[in-house]
Amino acid sequence: MTSLWGGRFSGKLDQNAFDLNTSLPFDQRMAIQDVKGSVAWAAALARAGVLTEDESSRIISGLETVEAEFESGSFAFADSDEDIHTAVERRLGELIGLLAGKLHTGRSRNDQVATDFRLWMLDNLPALDAAIVGLQSTLVALAEKHLSTLMPGYTHLQRAQPITLAHWLMSHFWALQRDRERLSDLRDRVAILPLGCAALAGTAFPVDRESLAEALGFDAPAPNSLDAVSDRDFAAEYLFCTALIGVHLSKLSENIILFTTAEFGFFELSDAYSTGSSLMPQKKNPDMFELARGKAGTLIGLLTGLLSTLKGLPSTYDKDLQEDKVPVFQATDTLLVILPVLAGALETMTVNGKRMAAAIDASMLATDLADYLVRKGVPFREAHGLAGKAVRVAAEKGVGLDQLALNDWQAIGPFDADVKDVFDLMKSVEAKNAIGGTSPQSVKEQIQKAKTYLQGE
Amino acid sequence: MTSLWGGRFSGKLDQNAFDLNTSLPFDQRMAIQDVKGSVAWAAALARAGVLTEDESSRIISGLETVEAEFESGSFAFADSDEDIHTAVERRLGELIGLLAGKLHTGRSRNDQVATDFRLWMLDNLPALDAAIVGLQSTLVALAEKHLSTLMPGYTHLQRAQPITLAHWLMSHFWALQRDRERLSDLRDRVAILPLGCAALAGTAFPVDRESLAEALGFDAPAPNSLDAVSDRDFAAEYLFCTALIGVHLSKLSENIILFTTAEFGFFELSDAYSTGSSLMPQKKNPDMFELARGKAGTLIGLLTGLLSTLKGLPSTYDKDLQEDKVPVFQATDTLLVILPVLAGALETMTVNGKRMAAAIDASMLATDLADYLVRKGVPFREAHGLAGKAVRVAAEKGVGLDQLALNDWQAIGPFDADVKDVFDLMKSVEAKNAIGGTSPQSVKEQIQKAKTYLQGE
Amino acid sequence: MTSLWGGRFSGKLDQNAFDLNTSLPFDQRMAIQDVKGSVAWAAALARAGVLTEDESSRIISGLETVEAEFESGSFAFADSDEDIHTAVERRLGELIGLLAGKLHTGRSRNDQVATDFRLWMLDNLPALDAAIVGLQSTLVALAEKHLSTLMPGYTHLQRAQPITLAHWLMSHFWALQRDRERLSDLRDRVAILPLGCAALAGTAFPVDRESLAEALGFDAPAPNSLDAVSDRDFAAEYLFCTALIGVHLSKLSENIILFTTAEFGFFELSDAYSTGSSLMPQKKNPDMFELARGKAGTLIGLLTGLLSTLKGLPSTYDKDLQEDKVPVFQATDTLLVILPVLAGALETMTVNGKRMAAAIDASMLATDLADYLVRKGVPFREAHGLAGKAVRVAAEKGVGLDQLALNDWQAIGPFDADVKDVFDLMKSVEAKNAIGGTSPQSVKEQIQKAKTYLQGE
Amino acid sequence: MTSLWGGRFSGKLDQNAFDLNTSLPFDQRMAIQDVKGSVAWAAALARAGVLTEDESSRIISGLETVEAEFESGSFAFADSDEDIHTAVERRLGELIGLLAGKLHTGRSRNDQVATDFRLWMLDNLPALDAAIVGLQSTLVALAEKHLSTLMPGYTHLQRAQPITLAHWLMSHFWALQRDRERLSDLRDRVAILPLGCAALAGTAFPVDRESLAEALGFDAPAPNSLDAVSDRDFAAEYLFCTALIGVHLSKLSENIILFTTAEFGFFELSDAYSTGSSLMPQKKNPDMFELARGKAGTLIGLLTGLLSTLKGLPSTYDKDLQEDKVPVFQATDTLLVILPVLAGALETMTVNGKRMAAAIDASMLATDLADYLVRKGVPFREAHGLAGKAVRVAAEKGVGLDQLALNDWQAIGPFDADVKDVFDLMKSVEAKNAIGGTSPQSVKEQIQKAKTYLQGE
Repeated sequence: MTSLWGGRFSGKLDQNAFDLNTSLPFDQRMAIQDVKGSVAWAAALARAGVLTEDESSRIISGLETVEAEFESGSFAFADSDEDIHTAVERRLGELIGLLAGKLHTGRSRNDQVATDFRLWMLDNLPALDAAIVGLQSTLVALAEKHLSTLMPGYTHLQRAQPITLAHWLMSHFWALQRDRERLSDLRDRVAILPLGCAALAGTAFPVDRESLAEALGFDAPAPNSLDAVSDRDFAAEYLFCTALIGVHLSKLSENIILFTTAEFGFFELSDAYSTGSSLMPQKKNPDMFELARGKAGTLIGLLTGLLSTLKGLPSTYDKDLQEDKVPVFQATDTLLVILPVLAGALETMTVNGKRMAAAIDASMLATDLADYLVRKGVPFREAHGLAGKAVRVAAEKGVGLDQLALNDWQAIGPFDADVKDVFDLMKSVEAKNAIGGTSPQSVKEQIQKAKTYLQGE
Repeated sequence: MTSLWGGRFSGKLDQNAFDLNTSLPFDQRMAIQDVKGSVAWAAALARAGVLTEDESSRIISGLETVEAEFESGSFAFADSDEDIHTAVERRLGELIGLLAGKLHTGRSRNDQVATDFRLWMLDNLPALDAAIVGLQSTLVALAEKHLSTLMPGYTHLQRAQPITLAHWLMSHFWALQRDRERLSDLRDRVAILPLGCAALAGTAFPVDRESLAEALGFDAPAPNSLDAVSDRDFAAEYLFCTALIGVHLSKLSENIILFTTAEFGFFELSDAYSTGSSLMPQKKNPDMFELARGKAGTLIGLLTGLLSTLKGLPSTYDKDLQEDKVPVFQATDTLLVILPVLAGALETMTVNGKRMAAAIDASMLATDLADYLVRKGVPFREAHGLAGKAVRVAAEKGVGLDQLALNDWQAIGPFDADVKDVFDLMKSVEAKNAIGGTSPQSVKEQIQKAKTYLQGE
Repeated sequence: MTSLWGGRFSGKLDQNAFDLNTSLPFDQRMAIQDVKGSVAWAAALARAGVLTEDESSRIISGLETVEAEFESGSFAFADSDEDIHTAVERRLGELIGLLAGKLHTGRSRNDQVATDFRLWMLDNLPALDAAIVGLQSTLVALAEKHLSTLMPGYTHLQRAQPITLAHWLMSHFWALQRDRERLSDLRDRVAILPLGCAALAGTAFPVDRESLAEALGFDAPAPNSLDAVSDRDFAAEYLFCTALIGVHLSKLSENIILFTTAEFGFFELSDAYSTGSSLMPQKKNPDMFELARGKAGTLIGLLTGLLSTLKGLPSTYDKDLQEDKVPVFQATDTLLVILPVLAGALETMTVNGKRMAAAIDASMLATDLADYLVRKGVPFREAHGLAGKAVRVAAEKGVGLDQLALNDWQAIGPFDADVKDVFDLMKSVEAKNAIGGTSPQSVKEQIQKAKTYLQGE
Repeated sequence: MTSLWGGRFSGKLDQNAFDLNTSLPFDQRMAIQDVKGSVAWAAALARAGVLTEDESSRIISGLETVEAEFESGSFAFADSDEDIHTAVERRLGELIGLLAGKLHTGRSRNDQVATDFRLWMLDNLPALDAAIVGLQSTLVALAEKHLSTLMPGYTHLQRAQPITLAHWLMSHFWALQRDRERLSDLRDRVAILPLGCAALAGTAFPVDRESLAEALGFDAPAPNSLDAVSDRDFAAEYLFCTALIGVHLSKLSENIILFTTAEFGFFELSDAYSTGSSLMPQKKNPDMFELARGKAGTLIGLLTGLLSTLKGLPSTYDKDLQEDKVPVFQATDTLLVILPVLAGALETMTVNGKRMAAAIDASMLATDLADYLVRKGVPFREAHGLAGKAVRVAAEKGVGLDQLALNDWQAIGPFDADVKDVFDLMKSVEAKNAIGGTSPQSVKEQIQKAKTYLQGE
């Protein structure tokens, strides 16, 4: 047998065309899922009276042998295997003879491949979630150590206000938490079973698709066969989720790259997670974070590619859909290698608290200065202007904002001697104690809430 | 007052730079949301004791005047208004004097704009959902009329198996239903309130962010201020949802474009939804569907653009984020015009049942032929081969598959006289009666289920 | 030696980090280019007096051995080889000892990898060009056979005007010709040599970069070392060119998919370039063209991905740039398999001239009708209206446009008995005899011009 | 007259459908080009004997009036104008009566709009080129001032080797120069004339398309009418060019954003090109550069969008192509505002040479140290290791690399007292004097070469 569809054909497929057409190089990754789907299908055919119990048992037993061969690595592909479905059915035939030919009753590769792919995703979503949790856990553990570690907070990459390192670390936690939520929402859309939709019109045999769905761990059978055989929304949504994870990791990475420069000097990476230069022996490069940042671009491209492929296709199955798997596998592999590396790099890096504290210059308290005036009854807009004026005066005098003399202050606005208290950094941070603020107390509560997401699952 | 931030600056912004920097041309679309956010903030400041009740009332009253001006169209922008926030606060100052300067206490444009944008999306998601429901309702209404209207089903755009028009129409319903689910999931991620996060570190005043969230119709305050001021995940997710809606509409459109060709001839568009040619007077062009298909590409580009913009940004607010609104508004406007047009075009088109029936040639029952043999105990794989052989024999004889003589059949395989029954189209369709199949009974159940989604909301 | 940069490091790279960091799985594809670049560099160092002639000879001789090992497939990679440069230098050391350590004098992996990659592209552009020429040649050969084969021309996929098959075939020739022009323009931008730019600042040894460029087949040395080590414009431009080739092939494919439907029936694919269905034995699917169409989306994604990766990077080399090679290789492989398959499929398909001729209904001559009136002095706009009216009258009467009686014509407008001549299809086609028109004479000239592009190179 | 194509239609276009269909809101930007194209067409029809000289003169005279109305802003659009072509022809009819109806003889909106769009691009490419030249000129002028201004060069954002500011400035010049080359190559592909291709099949009147091309400033007529009416390669290529310009500006911007941080402190922006914070009065934000960086993402999205729109379209004109103009106009407007703003910001910023010099720590000369050993005969690989060791020893001792004592040096490797000379920064820079290197002499030559590109055009 050279293919599952040769009956009508007298000619033979051109070799280049075979090479273009074959999906085996990538769809063999769904070998286990293909077998599981076939086992459930054989059982469903038996329940429907299409196969006898004996036929069904022998088919399932043969499939179990095939599965064992995949798991042990002993499965041998044939040159003529154009995809994983062909390979499995061919091998089943070698094992159990002509009876294997009954397995494909009432189904098509169209519903079969869609089922395999969804099953693969259901099987693999937990690993991606776990890798995200791994990085989140690292962030939380570090945050707990650095509740009172001060650092400059930036907007527009300009020094803005003092914050705590814990707060900064946790900011990345929540982005990842949204990613997990999206993957969780996606899971429910993946768990809709195409099997039993046959090529397009639905199966002609009385298969109970609800129990079939249950047997395979799906929530429900797909409600429309035409839609089900071509619905690749789940793949596009998955690629969107992974692209956005990539974007989040690129933000974390951009920061780490900045914070490990000589100029910032906030963190130093361990040797285990940095590399050197073939020319410049003094270099210590944050390659891991650069790769994570760079791969965010690649992940965006994978999403774009699939959406472009889907755009403009007519109803039901078209071979264009074969482009769906490579990007999903590539995105998965990319994240499963990046996430633990970033976690490891964060765990092992050295935090230079002194450099961070030294980077908090007094002008970063200008907002606190305005707030000080507000508390004295000055409208914020005016207070903001006066604080800005103080910044300018200090700059003109060439001193720090906290070095202005009382008469300087009083020349600027309604400041009193207690203005000095404004420049207590920890007080500044502690004042941001509404929900979500940078005060140690708020961050502690933030961490408590975060932990419920880690433990709750 | 030329800007909200001029205190420290001695020079004046270059005019070109002002033009590049200004967001007013597009963010004025969030004018109502900006005012609503400010009203809630003034109330929150009063609850926190930062404003007196009287101050708060006068500010809110002034804001209500501003809102009324926006609604009546009488609001006059000033040349110096660089964004909607500046415009509102300037106008408030004109209305209530220096007290207006107290409104911005404890907040920043960073949390303000993020709040406005989310509020805008919360306010506008229902309209998008309603437009989708409009198209879905059209599909359902048409499907109910065409439960028994036969048409050829295609895979690879090759005639495959007979289906019903109702089934085909409903296939588009479910794609749109997934879009609605995604938008619904998204809504919960939009409804997280940034207000109270100030520029980055959190507000320094004791604002109750939970009641503030409630007052503005949000589910909860954002848990981390650094994250909240730069989180544009919701915009990216919205653009993904709209891009995928675009892809779904492109699939529907591709089909309509095909089905209204002279060659297919299944549908004819009404004059109200088609256009002619400036050169060729006989033409009737499906421009609406071509535009819908083409705009799917544009929507994909909007998503890609925002993701690329976000990629590699460091923590908290950077001005790059200003690129978030234009694509969201553009995607919204695009879909709100396309969806009702497609619904109208479908409602008013003529269905040519005869052309569809005539397009179902007998070879489309080859699978039924194989199934016939399966029911006689022939393994499917062998039955598939024999059916393929029958197709080839009929082609060689130059007759329809249903025109083969009994002795032809018997020369091919274990066929009996009852093979003729296979070629009853309606029977073929009725046999696909598992869940999701094309049989009128299955489709009727499908429609019932679909209606619960339309009514349930 | 575990890496080229270990001197400063006391710790060891984490294994996951090594896996993320390594580029060997894909950059080994540039092995020959890496060796060629090193040979030229050794010679340049000798010319600069940095190496003795003897040292240079021994290094070059060693490199030739390495090259021979790559070509014979006997080169053995070591686990510690993190990239192709490391692998080559390690092996060179095994072959010639410590002297190998002199090769990297005055260069860096930054200029080395950029050189390898450009050299790879220079070496491989001709193959891509040749594959395009292969498809173009097929189009021309077919066109020459079909100068007078009539077919309906479409706009908006509605029948518009009669054209010749030759004209349609040639329309794809020119799109591909523009692709070749773009690749040719690109070639000049690829041929700018980075070698000698070292890590970023330029080499500190008196290397003659102009003769080095010449030795490696480049046009000139890069004029700025900072730019040269990070310039990946050529990769982005290459991906743009390949994406647009993909788009062109998707247009051809969309047409073939349509024209091989039962409804159009213009072409029939050979068995060697089509596939069947595992469920429906009568099917003959244009998978090759669907894959070509689908892969256009993937190619667009590869371009998007690299551009997103590049966006926002600071000056000189960052590790993000390592994402440049995989998409370039993938795009190349994709096109090198698709192009010959499409050529083969076109060469072997059957053209059904009768079906095409039958699809030209008389209303497609409505424009000719308007032109007829124009020649009688009626302003085109009015003539267009009258032709449209004729179409409507014919439709109301249920006859073909060419079946209207003379009194019908005269009731519509200033038509005479010679209006019948308008409906001569070949005359209609022959009238389009300006440059670029569909008349056989114009197409013959078009083909002559096209052939100069094929032969000229 | 409500449209150019109504003759055959009895119903009226739905209002929503009209709104979706209309292109007037954006294609009115090509009003002048539309008129110019019509003038040339009228002349060509006269030359072909289709119009009399008198008719042609009156039409052209009417068109000149229309053009004058556009230029003076007095042209009044009608509600029924669905596109610029309709508007112009309607107005022409009002001005010269029924004769206007002869203008559209032998052409179609398909070739007309393609011609208008190409003409628009030919008219507007020079402005984009000039804006690029403007920024290049700023870079060159600054570079000439800073030939000897030292700054740290970075790779992986880690301090790598000393370079000059001039060299860094010029690195951006060359990226922009490649952009200009690409636009120049593109220009030749834009200048291929579609006019005379009519709807798809070519015009039926004996128009001399070569002289028509010449009259409109095109290089040649399009060789295939089917291709010409749907070829939007030039728009895609333009969007690629603009996306890559965006990427280049994002690189420049990322650097400026970094270099204006408090931590780097290399540059200070002028007040005219920076903005403040509504909350934090001390802030001076590089908004212009952030917007430039962010808009690079948007530009990438515009390219992606058009490519996705084009993907999968069949031959000749489809209405999807109407999506081509908005992105081209948007990309143009974006760059024409960013380029001069960045030039202005660079011209007016303050360079802090002291901060840059201070940022060059001695370890950045580690490569020079290795080169020192190489010059003493040590193989580079070993020299690199020894220099790395020196970095480590200095770090352990807590001293700068240039502070090691001679006995420290000698304990490390074959260093002599002259090792001190290695730490002369200007000597280090001067040693990079091959073509493209950072030595003042090389950069001077680089600038000379650059100026030829600015003057030559």
